[in-house]
Amino acid sequence: MKPEESKPDGLQPAGAFSESERAAVYRAIRERRDVRSQFQPDSIADDVLMRILGAAHDAPSVGLSQPWNFIVIRDATIREEVRQSFERANGEAEQMFSGARRTLYSELKLQGIRDAPVNLFITCDRERGGPTVLGRTHNRDTDLYSTVCAVQNLWLAARAEGIGVGWVSIFHDSDLRRIFALPDHVVPVAYLCLGHVSELYESPELELRGWGRKTPLEEMIFADRWGERPEG
Amino acid sequence: MKPEESKPDGLQPAGAFSESERAAVYRAIRERRDVRSQFQPDSIADDVLMRILGAAHDAPSVGLSQPWNFIVIRDATIREEVRQSFERANGEAEQMFSGARRTLYSELKLQGIRDAPVNLFITCDRERGGPTVLGRTHNRDTDLYSTVCAVQNLWLAARAEGIGVGWVSIFHDSDLRRIFALPDHVVPVAYLCLGHVSELYESPELELRGWGRKTPLEEMIFADRWGERPEG
Repeated sequence: MKPEESKPDGLQPAGAFSESERAAVYRAIRERRDVRSQFQPDSIADDVLMRILGAAHDAPSVGLSQPWNFIVIRDATIREEVRQSFERANGEAEQMFSGARRTLYSELKLQGIRDAPVNLFITCDRERGGPTVLGRTHNRDTDLYSTVCAVQNLWLAARAEGIGVGWVSIFHDSDLRRIFALPDHVVPVAYLCLGHVSELYESPELELRGWGRKTPLEEMIFADRWGERPEG
Repeated sequence: MKPEESKPDGLQPAGAFSESERAAVYRAIRERRDVRSQFQPDSIADDVLMRILGAAHDAPSVGLSQPWNFIVIRDATIREEVRQSFERANGEAEQMFSGARRTLYSELKLQGIRDAPVNLFITCDRERGGPTVLGRTHNRDTDLYSTVCAVQNLWLAARAEGIGVGWVSIFHDSDLRRIFALPDHVVPVAYLCLGHVSELYESPELELRGWGRKTPLEEMIFADRWGERPEG
């Protein structure tokens, strides 16, 4: 019997979305920003938080392993510990740049740990699903990739809810492990700051501040093999 | 001068989406599936393909490094090479399971490389942005994470366009490197099969086929520290 002949029930019609639905999806993708400075102090309602966590949990996961966990942080003392850990790592990071680049780096605000009313720490359990996970047999990092898919789902849902999200990545993993008492087999993936926003930048903040520029899409595309440009 | 005082222009109003826009974003997230068997043979129009690649390119990237490239594969010979590489790895994978699990594994269709009219290979250039990338100073893998954000953006945009996407991860990296002539500093992240679909499963196919089950969201959530359950 071929697999095609043993389809389970559960198939349902699934064509393209309506014009307005499509526009909404692209709007979320286009307007999503990495937020550091625009957080408003008001708390996030539980139902909103559960909806965006639900979006994260709807992410694809390798072998349906769902390797993520969501640590919701409202405790001010813990956030302060995290902020200090960031400051230490960020001081080290600054020293890795020189000249005008270092000056510009030092002027960038790269986190909103204290300003954002909710912080969210998303982890990946590298033993989730047991020793052999379907689809992870030849690339062990696909569980991390699944967890990142959950982050991106949440980020887009948050945009639709008027919630800004900032991903803070300048930490020593060992600090996060200690602060949150992670078991050895669980690894940090994303430390996020969340809060309502009423304004966002129209382009990536790093572009507006002159740190970098967005590359035209066409330059990213190859045809059939690395380095081969498509015709037309 | 504090960074807050040197805001560039470009801030614009950004509240919550309308009810119907929010519903569209959640619909894309909820209805997105990992597609293996539902591809229709008709080709994907260039403008549709460019829109979903544009969604990928709108992903967040560490330090605005945009480490991704998109190799669009229509060539049948290359797809056949990729399929053979998959078959070899998948035969190895099957042997890693035993008993009823192996039987079920062998009955699953885990790729649509030949059925899908377009394949898309998304890579990560680990040298993009130079030796020191803002935000990547303490976690070198954040460039891979950025690339996965691009994958998830594309996946959701594709759902809105009526395009199904399947992520095939059962390969030896060395095969993909050889087939696509990747430079050493470029790594495979996602090999995707794309095509129009007219029906999709209402739940993850692996759940419908009895391979696994979706965990309730509540079991994924902790408060403030690993292992601590939120109240209420």
